[in-house]
This record gives sequence, structure tokens and C-alpha cells, in this order.
Amino acid sequence: MLKNDLLLRAAKGLDIERSPIWLMRQAGRVLPEYRATRAKAKNFIDFVKNPELAAEVTIQPVDILGVDAAIIFSDILVIPESMGLPYEMIESKGPHFPKTVKTETDINALNIADANNLRYVIEAIKLAKKELNNRVPLIGFCGAPFTILAYMVEGNGSKTFSKAKQFLYTQPVLAHKLLEKITESSINYLKAQVSAGADLIQIFDSWAGVLSEDMFYEFSLKYISKICDAIAPTAPVTVFAKDAHYAIEKIASTTCSVIGLDWTINPTQAKLLVKNKTLQGNADPCLLYANEQTIVSTTHQMLKSFGKQRYICNLGHGLYPDIEKEKVKFFVDIVKNFKYQ
Amino acid sequence: MLKNDLLLRAAKGLDIERSPIWLMRQAGRVLPEYRATRAKAKNFIDFVKNPELAAEVTIQPVDILGVDAAIIFSDILVIPESMGLPYEMIESKGPHFPKTVKTETDINALNIADANNLRYVIEAIKLAKKELNNRVPLIGFCGAPFTILAYMVEGNGSKTFSKAKQFLYTQPVLAHKLLEKITESSINYLKAQVSAGADLIQIFDSWAGVLSEDMFYEFSLKYISKICDAIAPTAPVTVFAKDAHYAIEKIASTTCSVIGLDWTINPTQAKLLVKNKTLQGNADPCLLYANEQTIVSTTHQMLKSFGKQRYICNLGHGLYPDIEKEKVKFFVDIVKNFKYQ
Repeated sequence: MLKNDLLLRAAKGLDIERSPIWLMRQAGRVLPEYRATRAKAKNFIDFVKNPELAAEVTIQPVDILGVDAAIIFSDILVIPESMGLPYEMIESKGPHFPKTVKTETDINALNIADANNLRYVIEAIKLAKKELNNRVPLIGFCGAPFTILAYMVEGNGSKTFSKAKQFLYTQPVLAHKLLEKITESSINYLKAQVSAGADLIQIFDSWAGVLSEDMFYEFSLKYISKICDAIAPTAPVTVFAKDAHYAIEKIASTTCSVIGLDWTINPTQAKLLVKNKTLQGNADPCLLYANEQTIVSTTHQMLKSFGKQRYICNLGHGLYPDIEKEKVKFFVDIVKNFKYQ
Repeated sequence: MLKNDLLLRAAKGLDIERSPIWLMRQAGRVLPEYRATRAKAKNFIDFVKNPELAAEVTIQPVDILGVDAAIIFSDILVIPESMGLPYEMIESKGPHFPKTVKTETDINALNIADANNLRYVIEAIKLAKKELNNRVPLIGFCGAPFTILAYMVEGNGSKTFSKAKQFLYTQPVLAHKLLEKITESSINYLKAQVSAGADLIQIFDSWAGVLSEDMFYEFSLKYISKICDAIAPTAPVTVFAKDAHYAIEKIASTTCSVIGLDWTINPTQAKLLVKNKTLQGNADPCLLYANEQTIVSTTHQMLKSFGKQRYICNLGHGLYPDIEKEKVKFFVDIVKNFKYQ
């Protein structure tokens, strides 16, 4: 039994004595301890594929920051890799795919991934669960199928993902075929994560915001919804579609338990739109550059706006690497010590 | 008197027989004719500073695409340059400021720009007006003060503009001082544009979307509103705050005439939020990669959603350089030939 199950109770809409907090990218460069562990691996991909090192950095934020959940250290791009499309992580530039998806032949050549292709993540989850020893829940995750397609077609990060969107506009049948394969792979992957001990699953649609509303429903939410349906019977699911401000109500109509919000969303308005789901977010990551007084007042305002129940405190995006660790700890402590009236 | 004044009548909410169309970045690389003119200048900055060449590419889309307005070819970063902070345009990377703004001393060292510092733009407007010979209106523009600050502090483009936002969070007093100087410079600049013949002014807040709602009101909309107040008595003003989906009602409460919408905004919802202002936008630029059938059906749907009156057709962002010129012309013709029922 979990000693601190605030995250799961919040996700399920059960009564909680305070809102739980964890931070996207908490297992990351913001911690000197992470950078020390990272230095033991030759490169980022080797690091991700090493279950001992991945488990080690997964635990660090629980020990160091006192967050209410761990999230398995991994990368959303392990899915394309496991389907047969490998990538490189180029320092200070981001991911790069030497070969991209352009044709039906390219799509036919891809596997449906299963847990065997991703054994290193499953192993890392088991190690992390053991080390956590039921102190807090462990979150598993994957990228949303559209975000994964975006990288597989574009070949790298992009402000506009115009090549990926060109593919959706000009090859919608192929796009759906690829999205189906990614979705099936992701479901296999997440089921194995839950079997290995993941207590909650988060789906990251990091590039949802490049899509128009209609395109998001057709090419993204449809597949997110399929994943929710497959996983929700075994673990609560969080959907975080960054910048898809128009879709909050439609996301709430899936079988997800939690909706992640970026920092452009007004908490009060989100609460009006969403009933019977939990909200997660949504401090501006740059708030943690501010002085302590500003962090306190802005965080208190956010906590009051969301209210205690059905709310998981987080940022509206991942921690930026140059934020001071002390500021992150300060933010976590404000949330944990907040007195609701 | 203008032969085609659809844009101005639409902006003012007067009766129009059809919605006008122009395209952000219509004077740009999408036209081979632009690339030929561009090749006559040594580099981008020289190109911007050459009134004859700037006027030439300003007219091209009117002649070639048949759009209902010209927009003066220039760059939003002429304002920092005119204030004493020069920049370079690095091929396929974007703008770079060798020196950025960090301290009060840096801000004190900046000029308030006036038309004398930007004579080359004013000259280009006069030449373009002469060449247009009243066929269509000419649009002038500037960047919103926040977007200009973002470049001056960050030093280059960025997905997050985290350095610029760090400046807002840690040095709000200095940020307001800098924003005031940029605002005053922009007002001087726009007044000179109107005097030289600009018929309508557009303010581009290209990076509004990195701000949270409260930050947008404090650091961006306040200054946009000041510019609107200074310019609106002499020319209608369009405010385009990209990705500031939360701010549409507040933007409508300024003295602007037109609100630009990006492609993530639902036209029907925007019309519910905004009364007595004209809307502009908002096709996904990537739509122009699609086949003709998709372009027709999506464009017709958009035109029906916005309705004929108080609407200016445009994309939700600038044209991407690799769109085919024929597709752009096709899109313009669909709009011009649409039969309202």
C-alpha cells in the first residue's frame, strides 16, 4: 500500500487533505544530482536505455524535492525507436531522425512495438518501484500519437511542424495508418508499464498546439481517446495536450481522469468547463525565476483558483534546466504547506 | 480616392459586397518575383533599408495575387535598430542581436526613435503609395512592444523566450521602462507611416503566446492599447496577438478596429466574444499544402463561419516560404469568388 497516495486520490476525485504536487521534467537537468548520474552514460540514448541509471534519476526528485509522485525517467521518442525508426539526441539542438516517414512503404516497414522492444523502460519501472518502496506513486507515460507522428515525419523539433502538418493535409489516409500503428504500439507499451507497477499514466501531446481545432480532433484526440479507453480500466490516465486551449471540454469527454493545463489557461474558466475530472497544472515555468515573494503570491493565487479537491499542482510545462534547484524546492514547499481556508 | 476600399470598409464595420483578402507575409519568399528582387540586395537588412526595393516587393502581391491590400515590406525589428540596438539576420536561423538589453544602463542608452531614424520605411511607403496609384489600401505595421522587448532581451528567436520572461519576472520596473520607450518610439513611427500614406496599421504581437493571461495584460496589452489610442484617430488599427486565445475580449475593449486571429481560434466562438469589431484570419497556413478540393471546402467553411460583414480574410499566421505560388493565388480567388447565400 502506498504511504502517500494523494496523487491517486486526487486523480480519482476522492477526498484529499491537500493537493499533491509533482513537476514535469522533475527528473532532469535542474537537479545537480541528475547531471551527475547523466554523466555516467555515454550519451542521452544510452542513458535512457540504462534501467539502473533511469531508476536512479526517477527517485531523485522524491528524495531531494519532496514531491508527491515520481515519474519514470524516459523519453517519448522510445516509441518510434521501438517501431524501427531510430533517433539521435543532438546536444543543445534536440532529437534528430536520420530517416523519416514519407511513404506507405515507410509505414509498412514499421513494427507494432510491444513490451519486448521496450524492456529497458519496463525494467527501469520495476527498479524504481522497488526503490520507492511505496513512498509515493510512480507515473508512467508516452507521447500522444500525433506528437510522435510529428517527429517521425518532420525528423526533428520545429516551431511549426509544417512538414508533419503537410503530411496530414496531403496524405490523410497514410497519416491515419501511421497513427493507428503508433496507437497500438503505445497501448502495448503502457499496459506493460502498468503491469510493471506504474500507478498512473500521462499522455503528452506536446505539439497539439500546432493543430487547428478540427485537425486536433481528427488526427490527435481520436487516438488519445483510444489509449485512454485501453488503459483507464487498469490505471488513471492524464491527458496533457499543450496549447490545445480549444479542446478542454472534448478532452474531458474521454475516459481520462486528469486533464493537464498549460499556463495560458485560466483556472477558473477551466473549472467551469470540466466536471468530474481532475485538473493538473499550470504555473508558468518562468515563475520560478522570480523572487520568493512573487512565487508565494502567484502560487497562492493559483491554489485558491483551482481549489483543493480534484486538483494536482504542477507547472504548465516542464521545468527549464536553468531554474535554481532551491527555487523548485521552495515552490514545492509552498504548495505542501498551503493552508486552505 | 481608393478604387478598392473593401479593407477599410470592413475594418470600419461598413457594408461590404464581399470580404476582402490579403495575406500576412504576402510580400515574401513565396513569390519568385520577391526572390528575384531580394537577390539585388547584399543582405536582408540592406534589402529592408532600400526604399525602392521595399516598395517593389510591396506591390508584387497586388499585381500577381490580386489581393485587396498591400502591406509595406519591412521588419518589426527596425524599431530596436532605430533605438540604438542593431541586429543581424542570419540565413535560416533568424534575427540575432549582438548586444542585448540587461540593465537600466542599457535601457537609458536607448533612443526614443522618431521618423528620422526610420526615414527609409517612410520613403518606401511613399513610393509604394505612388506605384499603387490608389488601387488598394496600403497597410503599415509595427511589432507590439512586448514582442520587441522579447527580442531585445533574448537576443534571438526562441520557443520559450525564457530569458525575456525572466526579465519580466525579475525586473518588472525596468521592463515597464523599456516597454514605455518602445511604445513611444512605435507611436512616432506609426504616426509617420500614416502621414506618409498608410491606410491601416497592424500591430503584430508575434510572441504574445509565451505569456500567461495576467502577464499579457500587464506587459503587453497595456502598451498595445496605448498605441491604439494614439493611432486610431487617424487610421484603423488591427491587433494580432498570436496565441493569446484568452485575451480576445480584452483586446476588443481597446480602441482597435480589427482583431487578428490565429488558426487555433474557433470563428463562431470569436464572433460571440467580439461585438462592434472586425475579425481577421484565420486559415491554417498549412492548408495551402492541401489539394484544391480540401482548400475549397475548408475555405468555404471558414467564410461561412465568419460571415461577410466585419470580416477580413487572411491566414492565421504568415505564409510559409515553401507554399506554391499557384496555391496562394487559388486561395485568393476562392475568397474573391465566394457566393454568399
